[in-house]
Amino acid sequence: MYFKQLFDHKLAQYSYIVGCQANGTAIIIDPMRDVDQYFEIAADENLEIIGAADTHIHADYVSGLREMAERGVKVYASDEGDKDWKYEWLIGSDYDHRLLKDGDSIKIGNIEIKAWYTPGHTPEHLSFFITDGAAADVPMGIASGDFVFVGDVGRPDLLESAAGMENMMESSARTLFQTVEKFKDLPEYIQVWPGHGSGSACGKALGAVPESTVGYELKFNNSIKSSDSEQNFVDFILEGQPEPPYYFARMKRVNKEGQALVADGISPVRLGVNAFMKKVEANDKAVILDTRDSKDFMDSHLPGSMSSPFNKQFNTIAGSYIEEDQHIYLVIEEDQVDEAVRDLIRVGLDYVPAYITPSDLKNYKGDKNKIETLTFGEVDKQIENGKKVLDVRKLTEYEERHIDGAINVAHTRLLPRLDEVPTDQSLVVHCAAGSRSAVASAYLAHKGYDVSVVLDDFDNYKTA
Amino acid sequence: MYFKQLFDHKLAQYSYIVGCQANGTAIIIDPMRDVDQYFEIAADENLEIIGAADTHIHADYVSGLREMAERGVKVYASDEGDKDWKYEWLIGSDYDHRLLKDGDSIKIGNIEIKAWYTPGHTPEHLSFFITDGAAADVPMGIASGDFVFVGDVGRPDLLESAAGMENMMESSARTLFQTVEKFKDLPEYIQVWPGHGSGSACGKALGAVPESTVGYELKFNNSIKSSDSEQNFVDFILEGQPEPPYYFARMKRVNKEGQALVADGISPVRLGVNAFMKKVEANDKAVILDTRDSKDFMDSHLPGSMSSPFNKQFNTIAGSYIEEDQHIYLVIEEDQVDEAVRDLIRVGLDYVPAYITPSDLKNYKGDKNKIETLTFGEVDKQIENGKKVLDVRKLTEYEERHIDGAINVAHTRLLPRLDEVPTDQSLVVHCAAGSRSAVASAYLAHKGYDVSVVLDDFDNYKTA
Amino acid sequence: MYFKQLFDHKLAQYSYIVGCQANGTAIIIDPMRDVDQYFEIAADENLEIIGAADTHIHADYVSGLREMAERGVKVYASDEGDKDWKYEWLIGSDYDHRLLKDGDSIKIGNIEIKAWYTPGHTPEHLSFFITDGAAADVPMGIASGDFVFVGDVGRPDLLESAAGMENMMESSARTLFQTVEKFKDLPEYIQVWPGHGSGSACGKALGAVPESTVGYELKFNNSIKSSDSEQNFVDFILEGQPEPPYYFARMKRVNKEGQALVADGISPVRLGVNAFMKKVEANDKAVILDTRDSKDFMDSHLPGSMSSPFNKQFNTIAGSYIEEDQHIYLVIEEDQVDEAVRDLIRVGLDYVPAYITPSDLKNYKGDKNKIETLTFGEVDKQIENGKKVLDVRKLTEYEERHIDGAINVAHTRLLPRLDEVPTDQSLVVHCAAGSRSAVASAYLAHKGYDVSVVLDDFDNYKTA
Amino acid sequence: MYFKQLFDHKLAQYSYIVGCQANGTAIIIDPMRDVDQYFEIAADENLEIIGAADTHIHADYVSGLREMAERGVKVYASDEGDKDWKYEWLIGSDYDHRLLKDGDSIKIGNIEIKAWYTPGHTPEHLSFFITDGAAADVPMGIASGDFVFVGDVGRPDLLESAAGMENMMESSARTLFQTVEKFKDLPEYIQVWPGHGSGSACGKALGAVPESTVGYELKFNNSIKSSDSEQNFVDFILEGQPEPPYYFARMKRVNKEGQALVADGISPVRLGVNAFMKKVEANDKAVILDTRDSKDFMDSHLPGSMSSPFNKQFNTIAGSYIEEDQHIYLVIEEDQVDEAVRDLIRVGLDYVPAYITPSDLKNYKGDKNKIETLTFGEVDKQIENGKKVLDVRKLTEYEERHIDGAINVAHTRLLPRLDEVPTDQSLVVHCAAGSRSAVASAYLAHKGYDVSVVLDDFDNYKTA
Repeated sequence: MYFKQLFDHKLAQYSYIVGCQANGTAIIIDPMRDVDQYFEIAADENLEIIGAADTHIHADYVSGLREMAERGVKVYASDEGDKDWKYEWLIGSDYDHRLLKDGDSIKIGNIEIKAWYTPGHTPEHLSFFITDGAAADVPMGIASGDFVFVGDVGRPDLLESAAGMENMMESSARTLFQTVEKFKDLPEYIQVWPGHGSGSACGKALGAVPESTVGYELKFNNSIKSSDSEQNFVDFILEGQPEPPYYFARMKRVNKEGQALVADGISPVRLGVNAFMKKVEANDKAVILDTRDSKDFMDSHLPGSMSSPFNKQFNTIAGSYIEEDQHIYLVIEEDQVDEAVRDLIRVGLDYVPAYITPSDLKNYKGDKNKIETLTFGEVDKQIENGKKVLDVRKLTEYEERHIDGAINVAHTRLLPRLDEVPTDQSLVVHCAAGSRSAVASAYLAHKGYDVSVVLDDFDNYKTA
Repeated sequence: MYFKQLFDHKLAQYSYIVGCQANGTAIIIDPMRDVDQYFEIAADENLEIIGAADTHIHADYVSGLREMAERGVKVYASDEGDKDWKYEWLIGSDYDHRLLKDGDSIKIGNIEIKAWYTPGHTPEHLSFFITDGAAADVPMGIASGDFVFVGDVGRPDLLESAAGMENMMESSARTLFQTVEKFKDLPEYIQVWPGHGSGSACGKALGAVPESTVGYELKFNNSIKSSDSEQNFVDFILEGQPEPPYYFARMKRVNKEGQALVADGISPVRLGVNAFMKKVEANDKAVILDTRDSKDFMDSHLPGSMSSPFNKQFNTIAGSYIEEDQHIYLVIEEDQVDEAVRDLIRVGLDYVPAYITPSDLKNYKGDKNKIETLTFGEVDKQIENGKKVLDVRKLTEYEERHIDGAINVAHTRLLPRLDEVPTDQSLVVHCAAGSRSAVASAYLAHKGYDVSVVLDDFDNYKTA
Repeated sequence: MYFKQLFDHKLAQYSYIVGCQANGTAIIIDPMRDVDQYFEIAADENLEIIGAADTHIHADYVSGLREMAERGVKVYASDEGDKDWKYEWLIGSDYDHRLLKDGDSIKIGNIEIKAWYTPGHTPEHLSFFITDGAAADVPMGIASGDFVFVGDVGRPDLLESAAGMENMMESSARTLFQTVEKFKDLPEYIQVWPGHGSGSACGKALGAVPESTVGYELKFNNSIKSSDSEQNFVDFILEGQPEPPYYFARMKRVNKEGQALVADGISPVRLGVNAFMKKVEANDKAVILDTRDSKDFMDSHLPGSMSSPFNKQFNTIAGSYIEEDQHIYLVIEEDQVDEAVRDLIRVGLDYVPAYITPSDLKNYKGDKNKIETLTFGEVDKQIENGKKVLDVRKLTEYEERHIDGAINVAHTRLLPRLDEVPTDQSLVVHCAAGSRSAVASAYLAHKGYDVSVVLDDFDNYKTA
Repeated sequence: MYFKQLFDHKLAQYSYIVGCQANGTAIIIDPMRDVDQYFEIAADENLEIIGAADTHIHADYVSGLREMAERGVKVYASDEGDKDWKYEWLIGSDYDHRLLKDGDSIKIGNIEIKAWYTPGHTPEHLSFFITDGAAADVPMGIASGDFVFVGDVGRPDLLESAAGMENMMESSARTLFQTVEKFKDLPEYIQVWPGHGSGSACGKALGAVPESTVGYELKFNNSIKSSDSEQNFVDFILEGQPEPPYYFARMKRVNKEGQALVADGISPVRLGVNAFMKKVEANDKAVILDTRDSKDFMDSHLPGSMSSPFNKQFNTIAGSYIEEDQHIYLVIEEDQVDEAVRDLIRVGLDYVPAYITPSDLKNYKGDKNKIETLTFGEVDKQIENGKKVLDVRKLTEYEERHIDGAINVAHTRLLPRLDEVPTDQSLVVHCAAGSRSAVASAYLAHKGYDVSVVLDDFDNYKTA
């Protein structure tokens, strides 16, 4: 059996290539949308990809299932869950596909991939037992999707908190409890191959070790350990989940109703800065996304720019601040363009017409904008001067300690909650260390708010 | 003044960036269609591209003028020549543009670019005198397009031989003579910056030195030296011109009527070989283009494949054997995909849906094809056995020496002259050393002919 | 805990980075010699490498321990085994280091790495239990080095078969049996992180899945399953082990006595082909190593060249045919130079003065050599003509079926057994499919033997 | 004839490849030390490099002549000039070489390269007439070295101003006048292929157009135009020459006495930041060279660091502030390491043991340093407080306008003139816009001076 785990650092997502060397075929579990990566690896290993399977309808990235189907690969998706949880784009389509119920199995040469119904994170969620038939008659491991992670379980609140489905949170948590109970019956030696790792917003305490075992998780996974009673588990699992990024809701819809195809490729064109700005001004869907670091951005940027520094949060932030039909004009280093485009299409942002590089900015003939930066030592004086403090940390952080009178909106939910931000007052935006406030203040400035931003450590805020 | 010559090795084309550092602006002369290259260089030099000019309606590549216009750059084109030689897509368009007559001049900061009407190669052809106003009051050089090359002049027969316009050859040659006469009046020290270098099919004796001077060309350019009388010149210039590649006719039309935009980018997808083949079979515009070397191709290739090894002839050959609306499925090394796509769009082949790599071929489940290879020692026996010899060298080579009874069709003209190839006989295809016959025989096999190919040196053919 | 497994495809070697994010430190287990790779990954993860540990004295690659020590990293090595199995270069050195006995433990922030004495493959072999102290009080897994692999155990015969130590094989196997017995007491859920994967010569049946668990290996690892009695185990484990590559013996010495430093870097210079050949001729330690594929090599190569196609066997072959003090002149593609040099230094071949590319070969002014290629259908006639057949497959393959009268020397042992090859007869060299015979015949031609080579499938050999 | 001009942006140096396609050979004129670049291009063009020639003993970079000789290439150097101007390392050596006198010629296939003695810039300076014998019987152009540039002539003062040879300036200028007189007799159409372009410190008014012609230079080169009388020329040519970089003196010696070989390659190792700092502290020849931009450097850097941002001035600055035997520890982005090492060896800085990247700095456990930055508005107050102003602009700039009481030392001459900088006063360092003062202040801080730096535009300095 050939087995390879792939990790996307930015979305903390794992996909898997499982192949049978005996007949040279392979299947992809939870493919991302830029499927070329899988074809390249498979070709290097002399494997042909003949199948692709989703564990569930993802909330945090666009599934690559339709791209796979379009390339003639047979695709597999869950047929569990009620009518609201169906792969609508796939059912009845001409694509070579099969819908899976609990217990159904797929054969890839000597490999058996057997679906196990594991609802909770979502109502249709499957996990896959993988058995290397050449060596053994029982599974070597389980591709657990967003059911069990290393150190946590998939959060059952997203349908409510992210997708806006009311009163789902608790019932989903109770469903998940039942599924966890079944997990306890598995042999301890079975490997657990999760759908996400440390850094994902699909759970709250994911570890940075890429995989685990049933026995180890039973012993040390705090969520599973809380399941001595259903209520304990429900309370534990629903407490302190971070606000989901705004784009999660969109992903659910896209993955259910059908992903657009990116097969034609997306190659933004390089422009001169003034031509770039003219294009932006002539396009009412245009938004400039500046990937430089926060300090440089605050110092000087093109009018109307939004900010998302090119780090691990890049596309989570872009997804949270940009709507799917907007056209993204990038300010980015030449050698980062390809990676940035790949990141953006992974979260469903498909329109990237043009880019310039940071060094082009100096040739801009118009006036640039800046945003005033503050330290926490200067904040109280700003409040005295009548400014309002906007705290864009998570609610859990806010509840621990916050500035008197500060409003709290988690930065990844600023778009849907923009009406909570006053328009008649100047704003001072802060977070814990300056990353989130930088992005949020850039967005607010872009929207016309009068903002200054605190690029400082919250520990430096001393109350009198 | 900033001045940079860019060379495309495959089409032997020169384009130029001329800029004024004093005000940070630049113009591109004879841009290719993948204009990102110019924006990158300009940005590195802190120059903004504000203009782009064509010397003439090109026959051998798709001009980048419309891509430039689309990016907000002001474009310049000839307004000379009669009504058949107008930039139809530009006239009356919304693009920022200006049509140039003899003597018109463009200012780029301190630089003056002055149009000089130099017909002959084409009826509307302009050259551009370039004067660095900060340093001098006379031109430093002339961007001569396809008028004067290093060692040759632009061929005046293309309108007839490539574009099929009847009875144009001689009159064009006479027009060119008059233009050459004017050239003789220029100061000797002026630099000559040509539109093509060694390897281009736009002339017959182009040198490999990138530029020259008026004085040197007057002394040593054999075409110019032949102009002691008009008739001598006409005879000399029309003699021995190589058969133009088939796609030249198409380029003329495209450059006159308007280039399609490639702004959205072209990114072929990587597939597994069997999925690739299914796609090809389902698409009646599909053609497989295999870029491996000839020997490997003859040994074994996917059924129906055409061949164009990835060398300097790659896109000239692709242009000569593939129609513009065909969909090209590439067999190519991973690290050559980008360059290949760039090459193809330069000759107007814009549909490249997918690719596989050479090492993927071994995973193909169907039967592969092969083409029998011969040495010249084996050819006579094949003739005795009733096969017909197809000689795909140039007519000038054929006339020097050829195999008795061989048909001659220059390989770059095989498509328009396919009716000269017998369909009721097996064919033996040869050229001088095996490159051209390889490509031609692959094409014929693709079209269903029964062919074998001589991969050998013609010097090895001994007549009894 | 941060955990990352790195895989070298060519040597099928796994090394590990284990780090504690809480204090930003990391340790490398079984580092290769080109340690820059570890520093790059660690820096990306904001970890500082403060430790490096070898599980044992490796036989198949040069350990990176001394490179690590030289960079100020504390290094850890086994202090078990008798006096013949000591890290001689480390003991008493100025390097920051610690020698480990069974039960000793290393702390990296919250991580504990505990040495477990697991002799058998070698007398001093350690495995490392890794415990994430922040999450658990028992180990998450075991870095098992060459003790347990996925599907196999480390071979105990290498000291005898590779390093020439007499009468070691059986006693080592019995020691390994005792260690396996201890392994059976570990909790089933513990992950097994092996030192090698599929393709390594350090065992005979290694799987391609990157890791396993104690419980799964107890159930399905055939070597462990054979341990119902000590004798069964000894018999099973010693049977059918492949001939070790010649360079293994050298590695043992180098890793014990001290690796040379490659800190200054190795950057072969590009030369013209004739200058290259002059250099080779003037240097009595020079050897040309041609990395093109076998067919191209047989057709034509520089006189005296050796062959090792640039595939997964590249450095195993180079190590088997080239002595450590020889100077390697490469024929290799430009974009493969860096990888090739890295591959070579990993097996202790440190002198690579110059290279040319395959396309340079055509400019060589001298005569090139060729080696006659045969199919299996032509072999019997060669035998009749007095040639001797040399079968370079493994002994186990030879014993299954071979050509009458053929000599057998496994190709990776050709150097130490060269006296078994007759010098007074022309040779026909074959293997199972042409890869090994190609390399072996190139070597023999280089040594002056008269050889032809069978590049064909042994199934095509029919006995009358 | 094949002809290619190569440009090094940082040193503004041109080298040339001139080849004869008829016999596949080529010569390099004025090769840089990293000669692999020439072998790569030659191989791509199917040319073998058989010769390499220096126009003169270079002052601004290490010649690649010895690297060429070491690779078996025949090297050519001037035999003109008196005994102080000989290629000492070459004379009598075993290298294949030939010393050239005025009128000597080299044949490369059909190409003739004829030496012309053109002293002035240096006493032994040659230019090379290049004649394409296949096409013409007179030269196509002249490789003019540092004799004639586009828009200027080579400065004759370097021997005195850079190399410290007394009373050479004026006599050299008079010699150059005589050589310029000879230049006036050349045919106007001859191309001029200079040794340097815009940005080089080998002249004062070099243009950015890569080449020119004799006729154009006679008309518009201001230095040549000043030669109506010898005295006019001498006055014009010696006026306003910029202070030469400190390392120029070293280059003269190295190029005369013999360049060290870099054939073994230089590959700095990646370290963790704390290990890096330990290495620096343990090595009394170590110097940290930080390539980040000035602002970031001033904010925070490793103790003792020097600064040279990675832009076009990188190696000119490094050469001016670092001695040839120092060991350079780089702070640089991963993807810039290769280019930086190449840049450094081009100016003879060969020891680069290790590097870290900018993002590694945050992991440093010790205290970092900073340098106070000022605007010009704050300078007068600093003077009142007793600080001394150090103006590191060129003398010509200083003479135009300067701050009262400021000392002037051009920043590229700070090392040899360090005794002019007071040690008993705090310093305020400025230049025209902040680049030069940044580097100079970093150096002074490294040397233990108490400095602050003005990163501002000198136009902002208002006198009361």
